[in-house]
Amino acid sequence: MPETFEQRIATYTKRVDACLDAALPRPSTEPARLHEAMRYAVLNGGKRVRPLLVYAAGECLDVNTTLLDAPAVAIELIHAFSLVHDDLPAMDDDDLRRGKPTVHVKYDEATAILAADALQPLAFSVLTNVGGVPASVKNALVQLVASACGSTGMTGGQSIDLAAEGNTLSEDALEHMYALKTGALIHAAVVSASLLSEDLSRADTQAIDAFASAIGVAFQIKDDILDVEGETHIIGKQAGADQRLGKATYPGLFGPDRARQRCDELLDSALQHLDAFGRNAAPLAWLARFIVERGN
Amino acid sequence: MPETFEQRIATYTKRVDACLDAALPRPSTEPARLHEAMRYAVLNGGKRVRPLLVYAAGECLDVNTTLLDAPAVAIELIHAFSLVHDDLPAMDDDDLRRGKPTVHVKYDEATAILAADALQPLAFSVLTNVGGVPASVKNALVQLVASACGSTGMTGGQSIDLAAEGNTLSEDALEHMYALKTGALIHAAVVSASLLSEDLSRADTQAIDAFASAIGVAFQIKDDILDVEGETHIIGKQAGADQRLGKATYPGLFGPDRARQRCDELLDSALQHLDAFGRNAAPLAWLARFIVERGN
Repeated sequence: MPETFEQRIATYTKRVDACLDAALPRPSTEPARLHEAMRYAVLNGGKRVRPLLVYAAGECLDVNTTLLDAPAVAIELIHAFSLVHDDLPAMDDDDLRRGKPTVHVKYDEATAILAADALQPLAFSVLTNVGGVPASVKNALVQLVASACGSTGMTGGQSIDLAAEGNTLSEDALEHMYALKTGALIHAAVVSASLLSEDLSRADTQAIDAFASAIGVAFQIKDDILDVEGETHIIGKQAGADQRLGKATYPGLFGPDRARQRCDELLDSALQHLDAFGRNAAPLAWLARFIVERGN
Repeated sequence: MPETFEQRIATYTKRVDACLDAALPRPSTEPARLHEAMRYAVLNGGKRVRPLLVYAAGECLDVNTTLLDAPAVAIELIHAFSLVHDDLPAMDDDDLRRGKPTVHVKYDEATAILAADALQPLAFSVLTNVGGVPASVKNALVQLVASACGSTGMTGGQSIDLAAEGNTLSEDALEHMYALKTGALIHAAVVSASLLSEDLSRADTQAIDAFASAIGVAFQIKDDILDVEGETHIIGKQAGADQRLGKATYPGLFGPDRARQRCDELLDSALQHLDAFGRNAAPLAWLARFIVERGN
């Protein structure tokens, strides 16, 4: 493998794309339209930040790469499911995602609802089918991902997000919403590697956990900054959508300067938690910086 | 416990309702509106046919009742999730379910989408949290339920159902759709007890499997007959909805007489598969008859 994590990203992205392709039913399998829509929702050139976090955390904790494929795939499937429902007319009503028509625009609303519904159980299937992992660890992975995407995780965060439209939130309340809506799944991506790591100390487990929580919130703040400052053709979705919907966002409520400052604070905090892992943490540190410095 | 399964139904229904109540987040837990909607979707006086099938199959196979609660709850949560999405305007657009406003009418569309989305991972959490079951069996339960509700199971069946509106299907194609849309989860309910049973012979496993498949399809044919012949206040949903939507149904395509005949054929076939279990199969046999003879 090449020398830096940045140079390995293309390899990992290709790897997880191949695993996603293999996990998804063939487009010719009946019901074909549903399976086409599921594949369209997932195999769309996403940045694969969550899978990259799984692999980077795995490098940090010396986990065999083949064991990381299952959580990488499962978490990306859950992420894709959430985007499809998030884009529906009854939710954020977005026409564009990653520069292409959203699933309900490309297909139809019913197909979008069902395709996303079917991505969820596929994710859990993938987690229980991974070879070379004790059944107890598979169970822990199912629990981790189920909890991250449930009503006190990602889906709960989306619910709070919708309810907050047009309202003012305190900084704490806003960060809590970010921690659920976006942070929970980012956190699960990193922590899945902890679950697959043998003999991780309590202190190291907590450090990884704290890194994951900080970077999850930073990711969403950066997303909101990009929505304000980005251009549609670069970020691949309608810029300014948050303002149009009256979304409660960090830059909207506290200004772009404070948003950038908070992002940097969270990055610093996240990086500090990696100190204990020395040079092994370089991939996670690189990804954390990428998350707050990316342009799309 | 009283003498017949019919007399034990009230006990089992109360039992699974209490387990569902305990598994669902409190209505006061944030986000409260989402949790209220999840509880409204589940705790609505349903007949609990799928949980009853879990308990009846458990009686047949001598499985400890406490082990059956988790699959009973998980499968009912999945069933409830599917009904909420099924009722959405983009799907069947139903206002009434079990005699009450559907979730998107009572709350709003976004809340209905998210509440159902959150019921899915809750079901998988429940399956991995059950005590006294080896981790490998929990994994098998997750796989069973994930497969039953995925794109080649329940959700796939709903997709075929929507695509078939206004079209003619062969009897085989229609039964295949029924086997996915309704049969897959009914099948999983019965088979979950097999997975929890120790030392089940291959022949007995196959007999239970075949019983479950037959009764799953019979259940949907009976549902369609009730839609044609039932009255709204008795079946708890809009009678005649299938015809209004141009649904491909057994009575619609092949006439009510053939539908009833096919229902009876499937019941006979299902009951034959129970012969090997002697008197232990009485609960399953009673439920099978109830499924094809019920009035709502």
